[in-house]
Amino acid sequence: MKPDSFSSSQGISRRRVLAGAATLVAAASLAEAAGAQTAGVQGSTSAGPLSSWNDGPAKKAIFDFVKATTDASSANFVKPEDRIATFDQDGTLWVEHPAYAQAMFAIARVVELAPHHPEWKTTAPFSVILSGNAEGIAKLKEEEWAQILAVTHAGMSNEAFVELVMTWIAGAKHPRFKRLYTDLTYVPMREAMDLLRTNGFKTYIVTGGGQEFVRAYAERVYGVPPEQVIGSSIAAKYEFVNGQPALMREPKLFFNDNNGGKAIGINMFVGKRPYAAFGNSTGDQQMLEWTGAGTGARLKMLVYHDDPVREYAYGPAGGLPDSSVGTFSTALMTEAQTRGWTVISMKNDWKRIFSFE
Amino acid sequence: MKPDSFSSSQGISRRRVLAGAATLVAAASLAEAAGAQTAGVQGSTSAGPLSSWNDGPAKKAIFDFVKATTDASSANFVKPEDRIATFDQDGTLWVEHPAYAQAMFAIARVVELAPHHPEWKTTAPFSVILSGNAEGIAKLKEEEWAQILAVTHAGMSNEAFVELVMTWIAGAKHPRFKRLYTDLTYVPMREAMDLLRTNGFKTYIVTGGGQEFVRAYAERVYGVPPEQVIGSSIAAKYEFVNGQPALMREPKLFFNDNNGGKAIGINMFVGKRPYAAFGNSTGDQQMLEWTGAGTGARLKMLVYHDDPVREYAYGPAGGLPDSSVGTFSTALMTEAQTRGWTVISMKNDWKRIFSFE
Repeated sequence: MKPDSFSSSQGISRRRVLAGAATLVAAASLAEAAGAQTAGVQGSTSAGPLSSWNDGPAKKAIFDFVKATTDASSANFVKPEDRIATFDQDGTLWVEHPAYAQAMFAIARVVELAPHHPEWKTTAPFSVILSGNAEGIAKLKEEEWAQILAVTHAGMSNEAFVELVMTWIAGAKHPRFKRLYTDLTYVPMREAMDLLRTNGFKTYIVTGGGQEFVRAYAERVYGVPPEQVIGSSIAAKYEFVNGQPALMREPKLFFNDNNGGKAIGINMFVGKRPYAAFGNSTGDQQMLEWTGAGTGARLKMLVYHDDPVREYAYGPAGGLPDSSVGTFSTALMTEAQTRGWTVISMKNDWKRIFSFE
Repeated sequence: MKPDSFSSSQGISRRRVLAGAATLVAAASLAEAAGAQTAGVQGSTSAGPLSSWNDGPAKKAIFDFVKATTDASSANFVKPEDRIATFDQDGTLWVEHPAYAQAMFAIARVVELAPHHPEWKTTAPFSVILSGNAEGIAKLKEEEWAQILAVTHAGMSNEAFVELVMTWIAGAKHPRFKRLYTDLTYVPMREAMDLLRTNGFKTYIVTGGGQEFVRAYAERVYGVPPEQVIGSSIAAKYEFVNGQPALMREPKLFFNDNNGGKAIGINMFVGKRPYAAFGNSTGDQQMLEWTGAGTGARLKMLVYHDDPVREYAYGPAGGLPDSSVGTFSTALMTEAQTRGWTVISMKNDWKRIFSFE
């Protein structure tokens, strides 16, 4: 999928899954090959603020921002109640390649549900997923993904869905790293979250992914409570089921928390403009613009995936391979330079990426 | 408007305005007559927890709940991070009769904008508003109110809208009490909010009214910050205006935070089930059901407007006059009794209603 059609998409949740699946093919072989060399011992937590960052403009930008906004004598001092920092999740806080974790969850659910649906063996799009034919999966149309989302993300209570996600994420492993997805968070970003929190900032996750999907593990993994997770969502209906009220999930997109939706979502959920925003793709562009349009010191950072050895490398900015998952377009890079946003090079700015290194 | 059609309404924001305006006629004369006798000196703040409450089951229910949920030795102890209390606004925290403040704002805006729209003098529905013919206003159809909302609540940036609300609410006076709307909050309810906060509860406003409308004054008036105001909202669009990103308000309902929408809104914004919920009308029924369906001690309270002398009396529960603004139906009273919700009698449970008494 081209970056342009991705960024202008309305049904982004479905498209995200589609985009994710589309790269599964290419990734599968690479993943297997790379798996062994990345196995290691679970690392200890870091020694001090930003200790996993190499010295350089990115690390300095964070420290400078914290100092400017929290020093009471600074012209850019920010009242504690206004200290808001927002973080995209996929590709900013944890690995998003070869496919979004949520796309993997959807595929796993189809496989799990298949025994109860013998007709799926011969009914597209389910038959395509079940065939394991990666090329076929990559070619599924948006309407077909909508059908897959309907059976994997809707038609149940919210409670039941969260339970499914928690169970899946407790066991599912990343195809290349052979580790739980929740082990694949970026240590330097968690250090940035920690530093900001220590300095009175409220840290929010603002994700194009599903809000309930991310809430199912965000508190445990990032220390971010449910009320600080803003994401895309499908419609819900209040109903009595077995004598108890339930919030039933409906197969219809309600809110698309991507692109301009990120600024809208932040205003809707927080009602305050962030002072710091972290993203990594075209879907985060407007969140950074919105943050930067405020007065005073504002931190705007983009994670740039340029480390194919320790993680992945994709752009197409900087001539890296194009990707429909977490596209970092050349236009985004130009905007970052024009507006003075800080681009974090995973390769050069991060001493360590994962805790198990 | 009948309670049934009110509670099943989808376009509730517009209907709320309609319902509000429909009672303006009846209220106008009453208001004038009652105005003089309620004038008084701005009261001091209260002496202690729930000091404006008379002894009785309602006051006891609040104290018992706080003790049960915060005493570490109690079987119903609740961890601080889960202490969520939700409050409806109109009719629960402040006066909603004869019309919702937001309906008065919409009417005032039409009057204010009229000089720039000479055609309104002869174009319904604006001509009806401008005529001041209360009977005509009361008969405006839903589509006509949508037109009024489009020019008063949309077609501008969110920032500009909030500015308008702040200006209006700083000067607009209630027709009967001749006081600022923000002076017409209920002291006993603010004491309940204070007591809960002192005991570690996070207090949320969950309103069928407009989220941005209420946020414009909620922090100053109730001490509730923007991120703890959940309300109905219209759609927004991210756009560049004069080189700066803006959230432009569109004339289209996005979220109806009433009835089942209150449970959905709480889950969407907070992601946790409240332990305490306060409402006063059929629009709050599902919020109390949702709260009560949780385990442990849960406080479910309904304010019952049965004090025509100090405030208003409306039902139709208990044989009070029917009202399309803040309907307390007989069915709601039956449900309250069946489920053991506490009904607060404004007349008997509240020693003092307003701070100026």
